[in-house]
Amino acid sequence: MSQVLVATHNAKKLTELRRILVAEISGVEVLGLDDVAPYDEPPEVENTFEGNALIKARAAVAATSMPSLADDSGICVDALNSMPGVLSARWSGTPRDDARNNELLLAQLADIPDERRHAEFRCAVAFVTPDGDEFIEIGVVRGTILLAGRGSNGFGYDPLFRADGQTYSNAELSADDKDRISHRGRALRDMVPTVAKALRRR
Amino acid sequence: MSQVLVATHNAKKLTELRRILVAEISGVEVLGLDDVAPYDEPPEVENTFEGNALIKARAAVAATSMPSLADDSGICVDALNSMPGVLSARWSGTPRDDARNNELLLAQLADIPDERRHAEFRCAVAFVTPDGDEFIEIGVVRGTILLAGRGSNGFGYDPLFRADGQTYSNAELSADDKDRISHRGRALRDMVPTVAKALRRR
Repeated sequence: MSQVLVATHNAKKLTELRRILVAEISGVEVLGLDDVAPYDEPPEVENTFEGNALIKARAAVAATSMPSLADDSGICVDALNSMPGVLSARWSGTPRDDARNNELLLAQLADIPDERRHAEFRCAVAFVTPDGDEFIEIGVVRGTILLAGRGSNGFGYDPLFRADGQTYSNAELSADDKDRISHRGRALRDMVPTVAKALRRR
Repeated sequence: MSQVLVATHNAKKLTELRRILVAEISGVEVLGLDDVAPYDEPPEVENTFEGNALIKARAAVAATSMPSLADDSGICVDALNSMPGVLSARWSGTPRDDARNNELLLAQLADIPDERRHAEFRCAVAFVTPDGDEFIEIGVVRGTILLAGRGSNGFGYDPLFRADGQTYSNAELSADDKDRISHRGRALRDMVPTVAKALRRR
């Protein structure tokens, strides 16, 4: 059994990443930060998703000596000059309050007409090995910010986002359908061969 | 006595614009929207300060046939990709709630270190005459977002903004000192000769 650590306390994000990894890498065991001894997690001070994902994955390896994955992701709204971006999780000023973040984003876009509500979800996945090898993959999905939230699956801004070519919001999609099109699914699947190879070597 | 209409209901903004105009144009009488018959004000849907200032000034002329000035302004924070920008007044989702807007901006920048807290106030002043002549002036002042609000003068994000070269926040400055350096003071003073000339013609 090969273990990989996903450097997150976010249960829903862990579920999503584990689901994709388990489907792609036979015999992998995916741990989250709540499964390992606590350590000091560094603040995510970088202004890029890649930078913050690397910070988290490096800290996880340093603390646990396990091969570690970290995701940093967010929603980039064209009419907000690509913000909330790296500040997505704390957009309303309160960390990880999805309801308040969604409410604030809708209010900020209240006067923005449909044709200017384009946005994209971006995800950077960093993978760092105990040997110090570092890898980054980026996943992007373009779409539109809806006029009101729809659906209760997923997390974050999923209820507000309808991917281009889709009829439903991300929060109305099944887990499988979301993973197939999502920024996180794309980035993580691109990383899978690298993770699988590193785990085989151990 | 020559009259000019300033297309705002914001009493503090009107005070500031009137103060500058009266100091520069002898005999001018400055009215605000609360001094004229109500009319349907168009939504500020443009994504530039110039565009929104023009919308407001044109609507004022159409409704009153008076020479009309309008200001659209906001704070552009580097770490937020120049947002709140045109959404400054409604950044927290509630129109013109300065306290909530300031609180939200501080919370969004909570993890941003001093050296990345650069920002600028931008102001576009539009002047439209009953003959249909249209003029735009832009004023900019660069500065830093403080770690906490300071002072009680001014309005909007003044407590959070310290202009480059200044010791005090905009809300700690006297009216005269603020007008001398502010984005609004700069834009409006550049517009003064145009307004004075148009008023002399009437």
